[in-house]
Amino acid sequence: MNIKFINAKIITMEEPVQVLEGELWVEGDKVSYVGPMKDDKNIKWDREIDAAGNIIMPGFKNAHTHSAMTFLRSFVDDLPLQEWLYERAFPMEAKLTGEYIYHFSKLAIMEYLTSGITANFDMYMQNELNAKASIECGFRTVLCGSINDFGGTLEEIEEEYTRFNHYHPLLSYMIGFHAEYTTKRETLEGMAALGQKYKAPIYTHNSESRNEVAGCIERYGKTPTVFLDSLGMFEYGGGGFHCVHMSEADLAICKEKQLHVVTNPASNLKLASGIAPISKMLDMGINLGIGTDGAASNNCLDMFREMFLVTGLAKYRDMDASSVDAVNVLKMATVGGAKAMGLKECDTIAEGKKADLIMLDMHQPNMQPMNNIIKNIVYAGSKQNVVLTMVAGKILYDFLDGKQKFNVGVEPEEVYTKVNEIMINMKN
Amino acid sequence: MNIKFINAKIITMEEPVQVLEGELWVEGDKVSYVGPMKDDKNIKWDREIDAAGNIIMPGFKNAHTHSAMTFLRSFVDDLPLQEWLYERAFPMEAKLTGEYIYHFSKLAIMEYLTSGITANFDMYMQNELNAKASIECGFRTVLCGSINDFGGTLEEIEEEYTRFNHYHPLLSYMIGFHAEYTTKRETLEGMAALGQKYKAPIYTHNSESRNEVAGCIERYGKTPTVFLDSLGMFEYGGGGFHCVHMSEADLAICKEKQLHVVTNPASNLKLASGIAPISKMLDMGINLGIGTDGAASNNCLDMFREMFLVTGLAKYRDMDASSVDAVNVLKMATVGGAKAMGLKECDTIAEGKKADLIMLDMHQPNMQPMNNIIKNIVYAGSKQNVVLTMVAGKILYDFLDGKQKFNVGVEPEEVYTKVNEIMINMKN
Repeated sequence: MNIKFINAKIITMEEPVQVLEGELWVEGDKVSYVGPMKDDKNIKWDREIDAAGNIIMPGFKNAHTHSAMTFLRSFVDDLPLQEWLYERAFPMEAKLTGEYIYHFSKLAIMEYLTSGITANFDMYMQNELNAKASIECGFRTVLCGSINDFGGTLEEIEEEYTRFNHYHPLLSYMIGFHAEYTTKRETLEGMAALGQKYKAPIYTHNSESRNEVAGCIERYGKTPTVFLDSLGMFEYGGGGFHCVHMSEADLAICKEKQLHVVTNPASNLKLASGIAPISKMLDMGINLGIGTDGAASNNCLDMFREMFLVTGLAKYRDMDASSVDAVNVLKMATVGGAKAMGLKECDTIAEGKKADLIMLDMHQPNMQPMNNIIKNIVYAGSKQNVVLTMVAGKILYDFLDGKQKFNVGVEPEEVYTKVNEIMINMKN
Repeated sequence: MNIKFINAKIITMEEPVQVLEGELWVEGDKVSYVGPMKDDKNIKWDREIDAAGNIIMPGFKNAHTHSAMTFLRSFVDDLPLQEWLYERAFPMEAKLTGEYIYHFSKLAIMEYLTSGITANFDMYMQNELNAKASIECGFRTVLCGSINDFGGTLEEIEEEYTRFNHYHPLLSYMIGFHAEYTTKRETLEGMAALGQKYKAPIYTHNSESRNEVAGCIERYGKTPTVFLDSLGMFEYGGGGFHCVHMSEADLAICKEKQLHVVTNPASNLKLASGIAPISKMLDMGINLGIGTDGAASNNCLDMFREMFLVTGLAKYRDMDASSVDAVNVLKMATVGGAKAMGLKECDTIAEGKKADLIMLDMHQPNMQPMNNIIKNIVYAGSKQNVVLTMVAGKILYDFLDGKQKFNVGVEPEEVYTKVNEIMINMKN
């Protein structure tokens, strides 16, 4: 499909970040032009979309999530992290089948689309089914290894790494493990060796709670980041999810090894884990992305909520209302996330980049007046403003004829019926 | 109009809070029946709406806001509270005309409707124009006096109090002043006398920032709550907006005088003011409402964002993931706010109550699976789920035919054009 967007306000997210007026061409799965109105007589358009002054920008990257955990939404709330994880989440997870993961991943993907998210960095089990859901929906997924002492082997990670990186254009795979506190030293050493064998970055949950950090210090006399680094885990980079309780030494390692940090503010609040030192990491030049975490802890998968929390909590933490401004937050939610996920072709809107983009409705009260469009998006924007979500040149979600439409190969009502049926089975 | 809703999931917010299946009748501006399917052959229905399993519940009460401050949305961000207020907000406010306030209030009302808000407690200037906007839109507003050393007199407050409480069924008025730190002692004493003359509650901004509390202690040797109480300000009750930095003595006064506390978590984060001690106030039995504050500081007027922040920040502040659960938050956003605003007929859904209600779309990914509907609303809900907002029996906003429709006596596009024109004038 060749699609032309006219009359758009475009935020390409190329530096310097600004709002341009013009048009945008999508040919196949790529952006072929962005700029002022231009002669296009040699191109046959399948569709011309009048953006009517609305914003077009790169889709958000959900840089840390567990899609299939939508099954636990509003099922296990109001508990401390460790109790939540070991006594509630893990026992229910033990009942999950591949089929269940497939349906709950589809539900998550539909929710991502409503929030303008065009790719996820997904850490979960049975990646075959997760991958199937993404591909069928036309959604872009970077899978992340998640082995720990309760499941998965290094051999499986190696097999998945080689397989899923040559599987489908919408799919890629990063080496990863669940967390230091769930994975024995021997496995961690094997993981580090695997990263070095493939010269690959390694990702994991890191320093999410105080307990986790204290436990690692008790076990190894080091914080998680220092300990994992001492094993050679980050010789080829990688990253940490959460990174709430980071020491100066931890942050120095992030900087030195160019580790990506993905922050998950809603989940960190709701589980009472804490507030990550975002402004400090920004000042140090550490690359930052934003993730929703899974629906079990958040409980929703909404990048607008996360963006406001990133800046609001940074302002509170620093006791400085000027901390972490809107442009920095928008970068984190787009280019920062893409960088963390290795999605070099999906970070900005430019000729030759993948057409992973969204349209935001400015003709809504929360976007008026237009004193500052970027601040409106970050501070006042909501899922309600998302009127189009496109992945690889294909419109997967839109309100173009006024009504909500999913184009993910399945009727939404079928998915809702299915997931409620599954929950009845799982609770029995 | 007589409207009948069938096939609904109804949360009346009557105790105990639960989800019922059934139907709901609206005759004129009141609810005439709520319960299981029932014979209705004597009623002529103007409209029958199939709720299709969606939620019907009381509308949210925005219990502290400054509607017309939508003009400052994304215009003055990233500054400390005092600088923000004195150097940015006040000088721009000096340029506001009544006509400007009228249009920006309409913009705010439209935004409230998109978030399921059916009434606001509005503290601003030139209430005549604010009132005009609300009445024309069909929206319910409780006006709040806001005099301070920069504008307004006690005589004006008295005149407004007697006038606006007998002005229009959608309107009422509470005595109030801006804040201790902007109002000289003589005026505060006059205010207390006025409350006593009319046996009326008095409302004000209270203990929003540390600076404010420190200033009051320096001036009077007392915290704001203790000082104001010592003037006889709360002999007939009243309430405080924000109440972030409250001492034990302050909270004891709130309890003793049955003061209402309205929390504004997004604004308090964004201005780096702090986190209010919500769980402590709940434990003490203090009535709590939730407000968005104005768009100048928030920057949006979205009750879903506020609800998640109330619980998320309480969990963080208490370092206890079980603090302030979803049911308590939903009470604050509805019945608690209504109580603070004196809206005795608009708090719950029951026979004879005003038909101020909303419908929330459960047929959306973020509301699935339905493990716990109330938790889904508070933890995962968004403006995107609001498909109908009714005030006094009139549908002011809906998606009933799939497309967004405002029914506020003016085309949205007219309002957007107008407010951007006004901004151009004000910036010159």
